[in-house]
Amino acid sequence: MAAVGWPGCAKSLKGVLLDMCGVLYDSGEGDGVAIAGSVEAVKRLKASDLQLRFCTNETQATREAFVAKLRRLGFDISVSEVFSPAPAAIAILKERGLRPHLLVYDGLLPEFDSVDKTNANCVVIGDAAEKFSYQNLNEAFRVLIGLENPVLFSLGQGRYYKETDGLKLDVGVYMKALEYACDLKAEVIGKPSPMFFQSVLSDMGLQPHEALMIGDDLVNDVGGAQSCGMKGVQVRTGKYRLSDEKHPTVTADGTVDNLAQAVDMILNQRGQ
Amino acid sequence: MAAVGWPGCAKSLKGVLLDMCGVLYDSGEGDGVAIAGSVEAVKRLKASDLQLRFCTNETQATREAFVAKLRRLGFDISVSEVFSPAPAAIAILKERGLRPHLLVYDGLLPEFDSVDKTNANCVVIGDAAEKFSYQNLNEAFRVLIGLENPVLFSLGQGRYYKETDGLKLDVGVYMKALEYACDLKAEVIGKPSPMFFQSVLSDMGLQPHEALMIGDDLVNDVGGAQSCGMKGVQVRTGKYRLSDEKHPTVTADGTVDNLAQAVDMILNQRGQ
Repeated sequence: MAAVGWPGCAKSLKGVLLDMCGVLYDSGEGDGVAIAGSVEAVKRLKASDLQLRFCTNETQATREAFVAKLRRLGFDISVSEVFSPAPAAIAILKERGLRPHLLVYDGLLPEFDSVDKTNANCVVIGDAAEKFSYQNLNEAFRVLIGLENPVLFSLGQGRYYKETDGLKLDVGVYMKALEYACDLKAEVIGKPSPMFFQSVLSDMGLQPHEALMIGDDLVNDVGGAQSCGMKGVQVRTGKYRLSDEKHPTVTADGTVDNLAQAVDMILNQRGQ
Repeated sequence: MAAVGWPGCAKSLKGVLLDMCGVLYDSGEGDGVAIAGSVEAVKRLKASDLQLRFCTNETQATREAFVAKLRRLGFDISVSEVFSPAPAAIAILKERGLRPHLLVYDGLLPEFDSVDKTNANCVVIGDAAEKFSYQNLNEAFRVLIGLENPVLFSLGQGRYYKETDGLKLDVGVYMKALEYACDLKAEVIGKPSPMFFQSVLSDMGLQPHEALMIGDDLVNDVGGAQSCGMKGVQVRTGKYRLSDEKHPTVTADGTVDNLAQAVDMILNQRGQ
């Protein structure tokens, strides 16, 4: 049987995973702005027979605060549908008896309320943005270099993302900085970690070939999903750049103008 | 003829290159502090028949200001004896018609007074310390990502250095951050670049096998010098760590407690 490409593969799909920032909305001052057509596109997916989950590397707020923001922007979304790195990190920390030094955005701190942070024996970094000061990075470095077996967790490994006022450096950049400083390899929690995608598939009760990931990040959304056996489609919104379409190692199954167009094509294939 | 190791090789030496921070002094508040015995050791080298040059990746001050500080700490040293990355960078920028966006320490800016910085078509980073804010790193990133052929120069590639109040992240960490963000490879100016060591040897009129480098940085001082055919000795001061002595790729020709001991051994071998 010949492999079925995009958009033909939409006929046999059972679930869709959506990235959030750059697909649903562009972040920026205040709540940011919804991307044209995305509120309606989510509504149409929810009204279809497809399962839907949101799969984000967002680490600037608790899931509760993040979902509240999306609801203010008009999206029909609830906390139980959202998969983000912090809860996954907390599960790993507790399982391995690790006590983190946190370099994360203030808004994310409440997620870690239940975690013992005394006498740190590992470091967790998220998208700390302005908190990535020289002093704070140096402090995280000193914790790591002082450990016999330094462990660094990075909540995602993104290079940059787009806010309404331009591109911003993401957590992956600081992960690489600390990796070099301490001569170690970080453990990435979130996309593109296969374990992270697998946890979303498990929640839906689906096999990889039954699910499609839609994102603006070619490597972490599309490439990550493809590594797990899912299809991956890139939108030309958010951090999308023309050069993504000739990337040396990752080729999206499809590239669409935006989420609205992707949902149109999916539902058309399914006769909905 | 069997290769002559340390300290026997000192008999046939014609010149010595000294790293500065961590060998002559520890930086920190104010001028920092001279390392015990180093002022006297420099004096003894100068009184010997060996040529002497100082070879530093220091980029927090102009050479003039830097040398003035060392003189206040008691060292007999002049600007013409000091090789640092900024003058080397300026020569390269002018040769290639490049106009830099600078992310460097305020104290270094006067070195670049003669360089056209309008409409930047490359980025130069030095050890900017507190100036490595999220905002400033983001600004440098945006310049690079906006260029068709992004060029990043890094004044050194050190991981960290020791100040009187502890270890501090060095420029190499931020070089790696920008390399990852922009998917490029920086051009390193300064140690361990062979071109940089070669310029010091040329100034002394010596062949590599006639010169010895003494530093506290195993990779950049010792390994860099060895790559050029020089001998390299590490001191157990500054950023030295016990783990350096079992490094997977770089093995110093000798390891000594401090500069004073190295100079003792060199001059003993030479009967001086």
